[in-house]
Amino acid sequence: MQVCRTIGEIREFTNKARVAGKTVGLVPTMGYFHEGHLNLMREAKKKCDVVVVSLYVNPLQFGPKEDLGEYPRDFDRDCAMARSVGADAVFAPGNDEMYPAGYSSFVEVTGITGKLCGSSRPGHFRGVTTVVAKLFNIVRPDQAFFGQKDAQQAMVVEKMVRDLNMGLEIVTLPIVREADGLAMSSRNVYLDEEQRQTAPVLYHSLCAFRDAVADGERNVPKLRRGIEEMISSTPGAKVDYVEILSVPDLELLDTLNGKCIAALAVRFGKTRLIDNMVVEV
Amino acid sequence: MQVCRTIGEIREFTNKARVAGKTVGLVPTMGYFHEGHLNLMREAKKKCDVVVVSLYVNPLQFGPKEDLGEYPRDFDRDCAMARSVGADAVFAPGNDEMYPAGYSSFVEVTGITGKLCGSSRPGHFRGVTTVVAKLFNIVRPDQAFFGQKDAQQAMVVEKMVRDLNMGLEIVTLPIVREADGLAMSSRNVYLDEEQRQTAPVLYHSLCAFRDAVADGERNVPKLRRGIEEMISSTPGAKVDYVEILSVPDLELLDTLNGKCIAALAVRFGKTRLIDNMVVEV
Repeated sequence: MQVCRTIGEIREFTNKARVAGKTVGLVPTMGYFHEGHLNLMREAKKKCDVVVVSLYVNPLQFGPKEDLGEYPRDFDRDCAMARSVGADAVFAPGNDEMYPAGYSSFVEVTGITGKLCGSSRPGHFRGVTTVVAKLFNIVRPDQAFFGQKDAQQAMVVEKMVRDLNMGLEIVTLPIVREADGLAMSSRNVYLDEEQRQTAPVLYHSLCAFRDAVADGERNVPKLRRGIEEMISSTPGAKVDYVEILSVPDLELLDTLNGKCIAALAVRFGKTRLIDNMVVEV
Repeated sequence: MQVCRTIGEIREFTNKARVAGKTVGLVPTMGYFHEGHLNLMREAKKKCDVVVVSLYVNPLQFGPKEDLGEYPRDFDRDCAMARSVGADAVFAPGNDEMYPAGYSSFVEVTGITGKLCGSSRPGHFRGVTTVVAKLFNIVRPDQAFFGQKDAQQAMVVEKMVRDLNMGLEIVTLPIVREADGLAMSSRNVYLDEEQRQTAPVLYHSLCAFRDAVADGERNVPKLRRGIEEMISSTPGAKVDYVEILSVPDLELLDTLNGKCIAALAVRFGKTRLIDNMVVEV
């Protein structure tokens, strides 16, 4: 597995692959890998001849009061894990390589970025689409792999790719969960023991939502309240948002109809976790 | 010469060229060709194996009170002219092909887009960078050719390409002028006979600027005033802006230093013309 620190190096690597007639898969990550990341890499390896994993904690997608400084990092462990699932290259650039002095170009998706995390984290998705556009231009992958845990991110990236004619396929893979249902996240390491024990309420509230829908409930405000009340009654959990919206336009609904997502963001102390579940009726 | 109306068609055309090992040059235009456009196409033909000319009056770069509706169009004449200089394909999409319903993604360069035409035409450069990014993604050229007449546009596109790692070369070619010095522009057809006779004052004022610099003048406010007064004293000419700025950062200067551009926009009746001259001291 090759480790590339510069844009020139990873370009040379992927150009060689393309000249040899190989397809290239990209797994964009911020590192500190868990089973969710490895699942993306394994799937990329199945679908593409060559797998590039980008590993970059992108400052542009963090707000001024967010956890950029504390975001967990373990480069050597990440490289060993990527190698273990057959990644062919890790692209781990520095900030000067990605945003040199005088940097001033941005990619933005409007509309669906105003909802959910876009509303709680202004500027977040502009940071995501800008860095992902750069990574796509640098690596020129045939397919790029995203996790459904960041459902809105995957939808926003898909919209960007379609609108800007980027000509690659976005593959979104299901959420990977711990045994007790907590969605895997690099940020789970922030949780103390008590928070870690209560955090699966996010998943349980979404399962209750899914079950209510299966039992015929279609009233969106009622379904939303069900999720919110279950979480709010849990000690230490503070709801940032709970929303039930249409997919992929993220429109508000009164009555559940077609493909919909229940999405939530909840704080446990300083740690903000997200989770979601898609249903189709 | 192939005429492509859809993204699928032009992609098939350029993919074939690339598979055959050919380089691709793109000349992005809004049509209604003059010698300036043809010069870009000829140069593209010299430098690249295959030349694609895009012909699209991009609504996103026009303001609500601007001349989108009246912008001159002559598709058959344009095709004949492109063919005559050896263009291999014309890509002429409709608005539904470029901006389908629900379109919501944009590329923006900040900083240098706030000056000159960016200040007179809010949103203009966001429209330019968005459509050019789309064209680059669709055609995937090795080189793209722009005219120095739209000097700020060329600088903004270069900045976008560098910042977003688009991995192609921007070639900017000198302004092509009429015999009397008027910079060629599709908008010159808007001028009535009297306006057409006085419009070369733009070029003459820039030549006087160049001569003053050659004679040792370095005082930017004085040089700027010289250009402005020469134009303002011309009947029917109304200055939109006259600026002398550093290249490529477009910073204000007191004293001429290094590479600088004198750029101007002037109205003759409803017609807004631009021109510029670069000097290096």
